[in-house]
Amino acid sequence: MNIDQLETPVPVIDLDRVERNLAKMQAYCDQHGLKLRPHIKTHKLPQFALRQLALGAGGITCQKLGEAEVMADAGVTDILLSYPMIGPIKAARLAALAKRVSMRVVVDNPVALETVASAARQAGAEIGVLVEFDSGGKRTGVVTVDEALALAQAIIATDGLRFDGLMTYPSSAETARFVAAAKQRLGGEGIEIRIVSGGGTPNVWHQHEIEGLTELRVGTYIYHDRATVGAGVAALDDCALHLHATVVSRPTENRAIIDAGSKSLSSDRVAPSVGEGYGLILEYPDAIIERLNEEHGILDLTHSARKPAIGERVRIVPNHVCVVTNLHDEVVTSRNGLVEATLPVAARGRTR
Amino acid sequence: MNIDQLETPVPVIDLDRVERNLAKMQAYCDQHGLKLRPHIKTHKLPQFALRQLALGAGGITCQKLGEAEVMADAGVTDILLSYPMIGPIKAARLAALAKRVSMRVVVDNPVALETVASAARQAGAEIGVLVEFDSGGKRTGVVTVDEALALAQAIIATDGLRFDGLMTYPSSAETARFVAAAKQRLGGEGIEIRIVSGGGTPNVWHQHEIEGLTELRVGTYIYHDRATVGAGVAALDDCALHLHATVVSRPTENRAIIDAGSKSLSSDRVAPSVGEGYGLILEYPDAIIERLNEEHGILDLTHSARKPAIGERVRIVPNHVCVVTNLHDEVVTSRNGLVEATLPVAARGRTR
Repeated sequence: MNIDQLETPVPVIDLDRVERNLAKMQAYCDQHGLKLRPHIKTHKLPQFALRQLALGAGGITCQKLGEAEVMADAGVTDILLSYPMIGPIKAARLAALAKRVSMRVVVDNPVALETVASAARQAGAEIGVLVEFDSGGKRTGVVTVDEALALAQAIIATDGLRFDGLMTYPSSAETARFVAAAKQRLGGEGIEIRIVSGGGTPNVWHQHEIEGLTELRVGTYIYHDRATVGAGVAALDDCALHLHATVVSRPTENRAIIDAGSKSLSSDRVAPSVGEGYGLILEYPDAIIERLNEEHGILDLTHSARKPAIGERVRIVPNHVCVVTNLHDEVVTSRNGLVEATLPVAARGRTR
Repeated sequence: MNIDQLETPVPVIDLDRVERNLAKMQAYCDQHGLKLRPHIKTHKLPQFALRQLALGAGGITCQKLGEAEVMADAGVTDILLSYPMIGPIKAARLAALAKRVSMRVVVDNPVALETVASAARQAGAEIGVLVEFDSGGKRTGVVTVDEALALAQAIIATDGLRFDGLMTYPSSAETARFVAAAKQRLGGEGIEIRIVSGGGTPNVWHQHEIEGLTELRVGTYIYHDRATVGAGVAALDDCALHLHATVVSRPTENRAIIDAGSKSLSSDRVAPSVGEGYGLILEYPDAIIERLNEEHGILDLTHSARKPAIGERVRIVPNHVCVVTNLHDEVVTSRNGLVEATLPVAARGRTR
């Protein structure tokens, strides 16, 4: 079937572009001696995680236990959980995972560390632990080297835990400064930092310039999107996921409505320097998706010389592709404009 | 089980509040002679649709065919599809629905009308049609009475279709002006407007003041949210869905991270006059959920005298509850703080 015959709205993935994006990133990491540990949050598909591993990735990254469980069920054997976990239910689930696959986790505080320690006790299996630090992103992560040292010492002192190193997101010039200071301080206490894990697609081709980085966690590069194109790390032709939609109404000369709203595209924006609205319409790049309701995308056609007709199909490059795949139960894969398969997004919606 | 023992993040629904909200809206409609046709897009649960009907609603409203199919499967027999449908796949699905339940649909253009006509032919069953008009919302809907007349005449001229009247969203003072003009114009051609369907929770208690309205389509009133409380139509104690989350990190004195990001809360905002950030934390109303990543909610505690500890649970009133239920495969229902059931959100993700 031609992809233009699919019922809309529907996310359609070009497999040739996926392969090209995966190969390029693996080659970059190989060239610079970085271990690639792709973040599966972008695609949420076991099929693509296994493909990333086959191409040379050294394990995967998941954000939540539910994602890791899906990937372990699919045969992935080396998983980093890059998110602090708290409480007995998480500990029990982490223990069950650690019994069957190699698990690493991240902590930035003693309460999360106690959850991991409890998991290791229950599992009777070793769990690797990285300490997360803040490189200026002001999200999770310790902000001082002293805190990193205290956590590393606590990890080393805990049965069943192995201190592996440091993690941060996104990695930046600030990362190198923290790592250098941490190596000196922890080294002075006889503690080795074997792994320094960084990440983030928007700055990816400069990651090898960050002194001390050993591992790269990236997700968006598999599909790319309007944000990563805007950041200059990919071209529009690298975008492997398009949301196909249909014009369902043209109430006025300069207004069109498409059948893709926030339930299909999400409400995520891009920086004003990258573009206006909620996605880029390939056929009408001067049209602006100016508002979204759940099922309505409202287009301003004022600056578009051509105007789409009712019933016409359009392809949209999403602002932020990771949140788009989370909204759809299924994605369609294609090659040369022909449908290859419909895949359930197996790790979609795993918020826990 | 106490709801405070549920693994987070998790949407928890208070059934007593739901019942109170449903009863109040039904009483309002009964008092003013309006037919209540609840929009199920807020809850997406067959159980609650059937409850709304049992309390006196005269049918339900769905936005997409996939939602209507779930509701018909659950035993709902009277459905309005308040969204224009285009193309042969939609026509076939609408036909299948029209064979088994009473269907009404909405059109604002001839292409969508042809889809409905095709469905009626295939079904061999009558389909009721409303013409959508714009009351100033600048979304779908014809903008002139002449267009409404032309569509009504085309509907009447089509075998299998029944012209039922007009629909708009959201209804406002402008609605009454359009309806009055349409009644005069269509009446002059011998065409009766039996139904005038309006909607929108944010202005709901004034809908009876809109001359000519016969039917009310509202959705959010079942749960309410920060936006409808901000609009003054509900109190905070009417909010029946809380997103329970856990503080997983406290990197600095004035920053906390919760395990609910845009995958749990969506990126929808409220008007600045209603509040800042991505939701209201009941335990820390002066904390601001200032940023969301997919799994991280980043709290600014600068103006919160008390600061939550790592591991502490919080309850969040979402900005926009309809998009929150669409993000979760399951919701938990409760009474008096105790879990009653875990319900699959059966009509979640039905974008087609």
